[in-house]
Amino acid sequence: MDNYVRFFDTTLRDGEQSPGATLSSAEKIEVARQLARLGVDIIEAGFPIASPDDLAAVHRISAEIGRAETLHTWAEDSVEPPVICGLARASEGDIDAAWEAIQPAEHPRIHTFLATSEIHMRHKLRMDPEEVVDRVQHMVAYAKQYCEDVEFSPEDAGRSDPEFLYVVLEEAIKAGATTLNIPDTVGYTTPEEFGALISGIIANTPGIDNIVVSVHCHDDLGLATANTLAGIRAGARQAEVTINGIGERAGNTSLEEVVMALHTRRPIFKLEHGINTTQITRTSRMVSKYTGIVVQPNKAVVGANAFAHEAGIHQDGMLKHEETYEIMRPETVGLSQSTLVMGKHSGRHALRVRLQELGFDLNNEELKDIFARFKRVAEKKKLIADADLVALISDEIYQPHEVFRLKDAQVVCGTLGMPTATVRMVGPDGEESEQAAIGTGPVDACYRAIDAIVRLPNELQEYNVNAVTEGIDALGEVTVRIQVDLEQIAAPQRISPQHQQLQDRTFGGHGASTDVFVASARAYVSALNKALAALGLPVDKLENTPGSDSEKV
Amino acid sequence: MDNYVRFFDTTLRDGEQSPGATLSSAEKIEVARQLARLGVDIIEAGFPIASPDDLAAVHRISAEIGRAETLHTWAEDSVEPPVICGLARASEGDIDAAWEAIQPAEHPRIHTFLATSEIHMRHKLRMDPEEVVDRVQHMVAYAKQYCEDVEFSPEDAGRSDPEFLYVVLEEAIKAGATTLNIPDTVGYTTPEEFGALISGIIANTPGIDNIVVSVHCHDDLGLATANTLAGIRAGARQAEVTINGIGERAGNTSLEEVVMALHTRRPIFKLEHGINTTQITRTSRMVSKYTGIVVQPNKAVVGANAFAHEAGIHQDGMLKHEETYEIMRPETVGLSQSTLVMGKHSGRHALRVRLQELGFDLNNEELKDIFARFKRVAEKKKLIADADLVALISDEIYQPHEVFRLKDAQVVCGTLGMPTATVRMVGPDGEESEQAAIGTGPVDACYRAIDAIVRLPNELQEYNVNAVTEGIDALGEVTVRIQVDLEQIAAPQRISPQHQQLQDRTFGGHGASTDVFVASARAYVSALNKALAALGLPVDKLENTPGSDSEKV
Repeated sequence: MDNYVRFFDTTLRDGEQSPGATLSSAEKIEVARQLARLGVDIIEAGFPIASPDDLAAVHRISAEIGRAETLHTWAEDSVEPPVICGLARASEGDIDAAWEAIQPAEHPRIHTFLATSEIHMRHKLRMDPEEVVDRVQHMVAYAKQYCEDVEFSPEDAGRSDPEFLYVVLEEAIKAGATTLNIPDTVGYTTPEEFGALISGIIANTPGIDNIVVSVHCHDDLGLATANTLAGIRAGARQAEVTINGIGERAGNTSLEEVVMALHTRRPIFKLEHGINTTQITRTSRMVSKYTGIVVQPNKAVVGANAFAHEAGIHQDGMLKHEETYEIMRPETVGLSQSTLVMGKHSGRHALRVRLQELGFDLNNEELKDIFARFKRVAEKKKLIADADLVALISDEIYQPHEVFRLKDAQVVCGTLGMPTATVRMVGPDGEESEQAAIGTGPVDACYRAIDAIVRLPNELQEYNVNAVTEGIDALGEVTVRIQVDLEQIAAPQRISPQHQQLQDRTFGGHGASTDVFVASARAYVSALNKALAALGLPVDKLENTPGSDSEKV
Repeated sequence: MDNYVRFFDTTLRDGEQSPGATLSSAEKIEVARQLARLGVDIIEAGFPIASPDDLAAVHRISAEIGRAETLHTWAEDSVEPPVICGLARASEGDIDAAWEAIQPAEHPRIHTFLATSEIHMRHKLRMDPEEVVDRVQHMVAYAKQYCEDVEFSPEDAGRSDPEFLYVVLEEAIKAGATTLNIPDTVGYTTPEEFGALISGIIANTPGIDNIVVSVHCHDDLGLATANTLAGIRAGARQAEVTINGIGERAGNTSLEEVVMALHTRRPIFKLEHGINTTQITRTSRMVSKYTGIVVQPNKAVVGANAFAHEAGIHQDGMLKHEETYEIMRPETVGLSQSTLVMGKHSGRHALRVRLQELGFDLNNEELKDIFARFKRVAEKKKLIADADLVALISDEIYQPHEVFRLKDAQVVCGTLGMPTATVRMVGPDGEESEQAAIGTGPVDACYRAIDAIVRLPNELQEYNVNAVTEGIDALGEVTVRIQVDLEQIAAPQRISPQHQQLQDRTFGGHGASTDVFVASARAYVSALNKALAALGLPVDKLENTPGSDSEKV
């Protein structure tokens, strides 16, 4: 067994299944680029059968991030193109779609799965064990005809009969699987159990010697990191993880926790990996910003307080020796102490250089837009930190297709009552319209005014504002999450039956501005545009025109 | 060895050491009450030597929560008074203060500690191992003369020489310690190491048979829950935990994760505990609200998405059997699906009953204030959920002493620029003053106007808004964190040298309103009042007058 642990990042697949985490296509590309910089070995880029959008995003990631010639137009030559993986249920249609999406990649991988626990086979699949074994054989072989690199996962392995797993896995190997991934789908196992499961599989599955065994854990009982490490100690050499541990329910294993455990306790694990730890903080912040899923301050490695003793929190005498209370250096995870970089006298070249250092590859048009925006913010706020730049980029460049565009918004509110907002918007037909509304507060008033123009019935599920940096003049970044109420959409606008599965989907939006009210309005419009695009109504009559709104900031 | 695991909650001590988590005295009492309802066995209520305020809060918790006759005026008779514990370094002054604070409790405990790792002994304590052993003997014996129940912790045990630990712990037992707590102070160990450390201590420490061994873990590598469970499997029968895992850096072990692991996997752990799991969600939300430390959506057990498949997130076919993707029921942790309870026609009696069910014990004056506030909110928002009530209570009743009071605030802002805010405030002398200011946004403008009146130089470190419930008309709850800039305070106002340690302290404030701008103003004033009270300038000329501001909401 080798001593190299592969990191398989599923932020764009399992992570994106988090409620409201829906990413735009441009955001997915940017995250995939950053994952390549971070040094992950495999990017699971999506679930291509799920929708044409998903397939297109995986295809683009395969072509742009999965090939050295395009990768090296923006990344250092030392960054290798990662394996690009597409998920597929054990069916021909799913596998066809996955292959279509990943085939431009230099190193494509098809990942197919089928449940093996009694509860899943009986209640979800309604198949008996023999049928499951047969389906696995056929579908792994079907994938293998497209692609040398095939991964198979027995879903809910944590609750499956180990003896049955040995049989299923043996058949998967015979059919051509090169990686066998063992998921604890419901986050049920303890480290002892999960380690024993992996040891048992390695000891008892015929033909497993040249196969990479992988672990995929969930954090329902707070044990995902420990279970993953237990699996690795038992011989697994691939860890399936997400940035910030996002994912369904309590989420997946956090990449940053497993990496920093291997790194900090290297003398006991004695294992190698390809992760560039100094990219961890940047990746964490990007994913949090694009998904709108906050990282709690007390999150290990990437929480705002994880290195808080650096900020003078510890009492005087406690810093006589830095290792007294510190097992990791903030620099190791790329948390730099001096992030104030630019001001209003900084030029366009300096901005481009800094953005490249931050990993953003913008074309001239995009750079022009972001520079104009940067100048307006710099006039209000003396020092622009890296975090501000990332917020502006995310607000300016990575917005969804603009079906409706916010032109102006203003509000009057306070303790004296009657909060009143006015908005002016440009619709898909290019027509401007204005509406005023009274609400329970300024944001409510503004959203009511926007609703009077956009008319997409929805429920606001989450509203969140964070200051991007410290200081009273900080940029505020607003994230919202809405759920569209399809029942209320009038008959002629009804969406097609294949979109009924969208009923339960929520859409996130974000906006950044030094004016929290303006940021709120922009975030809501961005979520509405995402929903309109996903529902296909009214279809993209406007091109994506980032930065065309000269009044924003 | 018995099969009962004691839960020792240190939310009010180690948790409150989180940056900005400073709680007011009223909030501490309310959290302690809720911890008693939750069924924790021991409440570590504070570090009495740290300040007279800390001592007073621990004293009040001892008298009100630590005694059956006062406890049972608000709690069911089945709720037992927990042990109330005070922390003390290994010095007479600390132990004297701890005893003074806890002695009203029926079951008082003194918890003293001294570091035993080479790095701490050499760099922090500057003591040699013999001196450490000697100090432990003397200080445990010193505590024992006050109190039968004495806990001793060898700080940084996770990095201490086990052979040295056996010696130190043996001496602590001889001197009268009844609980030995083994902390992994820096979150450095793996479950295998930590389990082996506990096994070794139990096997090799003379006299340990009748002693309760305790574990205290930190989450720097994401392993706190796994380490705690490994310690319990090795024979520890006390777990030191916090609600939501708050604490310094990446925080402490989460109570909810350890409890739900023992509960969900009871057949493998075979252990009993006294926690009422249905109080977990309520406790988590209270602690998050009062400390201002958000819980990320993908946090195990208490995150907003932890049970998100309940909300229709899973695709159609996946809910054919609830256990397919669910290992815990949301009801088990007290997450009720029907939280909409009251509207504008609800009367005062109904409100009182509901608040009692939620665990709030208000006097008539407080009830009158909260009812008036409730009515004003109910006029704007049709249905008032439990979460709204908790936000109102926290905004209305558990505010710090009001040195300055916000009377009115209004703002005009939008994309057209020049955000302008006006505030009217009542100062400590009862005088009203008004100020207007322009800012980069509405919140900045408002905070500048308040600064022109309050004149306490500070840096805004964090600004955060959350919608309390779903829906566009939701209450917004704002939390802010400020750091006071003592250097800038003019000489006559300079604080006394013993307050110099406050230099690094941050102060949190919260405010709730359907108008996010008003909530922002209230949160900032609340943080300023907390800072003024802690710094002792200008000293409390105003009584705590909750609800006296008839214009708020």
